[in-house]
Amino acid sequence: MPTFQDILDAHERITPYIHRTPVYTSRYINGLCGAQVFFKCENLQKTGSFKIRGATNAVFTLTEEEAQKGVITHSSGNHGAALAQAARWRGIRCYVVMPHNAPAIKKQAARGYGAEIVYSEATLDSREAVARELIEKHGLSLIHPYDNPAVIAGQATAGRELLEETGGLDALLVPAGGGGILSGSAILAKEGPHRMSVYGAEPSLADDAYQSLKTGVRQPQRPPVTVADGLRTALSDRTFNIIRSYVDDIILVDDDEIVAAMRLVWERMKLIIEPSSAAPLAALLKSGKRFAGKKVGIVFSGGNVDLDHLPWLK
Amino acid sequence: MPTFQDILDAHERITPYIHRTPVYTSRYINGLCGAQVFFKCENLQKTGSFKIRGATNAVFTLTEEEAQKGVITHSSGNHGAALAQAARWRGIRCYVVMPHNAPAIKKQAARGYGAEIVYSEATLDSREAVARELIEKHGLSLIHPYDNPAVIAGQATAGRELLEETGGLDALLVPAGGGGILSGSAILAKEGPHRMSVYGAEPSLADDAYQSLKTGVRQPQRPPVTVADGLRTALSDRTFNIIRSYVDDIILVDDDEIVAAMRLVWERMKLIIEPSSAAPLAALLKSGKRFAGKKVGIVFSGGNVDLDHLPWLK
Repeated sequence: MPTFQDILDAHERITPYIHRTPVYTSRYINGLCGAQVFFKCENLQKTGSFKIRGATNAVFTLTEEEAQKGVITHSSGNHGAALAQAARWRGIRCYVVMPHNAPAIKKQAARGYGAEIVYSEATLDSREAVARELIEKHGLSLIHPYDNPAVIAGQATAGRELLEETGGLDALLVPAGGGGILSGSAILAKEGPHRMSVYGAEPSLADDAYQSLKTGVRQPQRPPVTVADGLRTALSDRTFNIIRSYVDDIILVDDDEIVAAMRLVWERMKLIIEPSSAAPLAALLKSGKRFAGKKVGIVFSGGNVDLDHLPWLK
Repeated sequence: MPTFQDILDAHERITPYIHRTPVYTSRYINGLCGAQVFFKCENLQKTGSFKIRGATNAVFTLTEEEAQKGVITHSSGNHGAALAQAARWRGIRCYVVMPHNAPAIKKQAARGYGAEIVYSEATLDSREAVARELIEKHGLSLIHPYDNPAVIAGQATAGRELLEETGGLDALLVPAGGGGILSGSAILAKEGPHRMSVYGAEPSLADDAYQSLKTGVRQPQRPPVTVADGLRTALSDRTFNIIRSYVDDIILVDDDEIVAAMRLVWERMKLIIEPSSAAPLAALLKSGKRFAGKKVGIVFSGGNVDLDHLPWLK
């Protein structure tokens, strides 16, 4: 489990590469929530999501010898693109394992950032087998999208910047998927000098984190159906343990609440955020008086949307 | 015709009310254009467009006696919403004349900013007659969307901030509709201390400014068909005279080029801009070597889009 100092080190390590993304506010949304809300715009981050933070920290934490052999992941979404970009910055190879039937838009994105795409069958078993084979053959480092201390420390730097910008918050809301940014933010909030509450916003249709906290036993992934495609994954043992110790609560949000919050941000803030990014605002909007009068931070986690398929036009 | 000093005065007058909008860059778009491009994000401005600059300057230039009688406009788009907001800041009444069949979204927007909506028939004659009647009855000040020196000076403050931010530009590209921001920007560029070229980007389907410059005679409005709905209006004598003296060129862009540029900004910059806003980038992208190696400023004029009807999904 990474420490608060690991977050500070990660921040120093990645700052030369990433954007210091802006923090926006909306008087209209403040009025709706009865709170003072600060949005950290990682949708405007390089590669279009906060995932570049963890990926860059992980890649630059490798020893020279490890790095020269290359890195690999079997995440085809934002983490895959981020890892490819981070590897390019370090000048090393990056393999991304994707199923044959992955959307063309994801293949293009990963290739555009310099990844070598390796195809597998559509099952998780096949993806892991293909990755394992390459790891054995080339001695690659597997950079998991969230079950990795350097990744977790990197993701926490978004909240760190938000704290610097706002001078402190009462609460921080982030999306709950595999638990990378949630566990990192929780370490920041409970071990750093600026104490605050930390909440995960999770789709009701992918409520493994909520159920894991409730039952005390880590739950498997739900069927991947929620519109928030970045939040379909389940916690790992590592992220579950951090979240269990430090996170104040998981707030469940329905898909229609996510889509309404996403559309609200597009309309009022003129910012493109992806569905997963809208889950924390959806959670805030449905929480009634819980956050009334508070200073609340929200991380807009990414802005990679298929503009041909908007969820409110289905 | 307003002077450079009028622009400075306008800037001082409106600064307490408006956002200092951010200036963004995109390495990807720089690569496409072979230029260094600075985007002034008036889509993130209050009321969602730069029109609040001119409207606020006009409203706060009124004498106390004039102001107390109220203001009126028959622009139902961004200027109407902007005028309503500016009037609210000054604490005075604002009437917006709209045809009965105006889209509900425009009625809501104007009402949301505090306008009193007055309905007319769908013709321009009827709108003007309804406005004239109210002006005679209440002594209202008509604030025209562009044929007004205070409005023109106000619109030029967007370019002024962009010059402050960048320390100077080789060229500035703005949309060409009624010519408010184009004529104001031209005065800024040719009478202020930072000289630069100024270009208007105009839809081929609404090419009255281009034809007016070419023939030397002001041309009437074309049928209102272009996707860039903010640019369907024609120049006035006032804006035509300024543009004729000071603007370097009008660059025509086809609707499909406007839509492609708009989508490019949504995808790459994660910013919501309306079609009219995309015309200058479309002009830059089609201009080949004309701007190669130059420092170019572009004003993203607004972000008010009907999210149920995106032009690439038609």
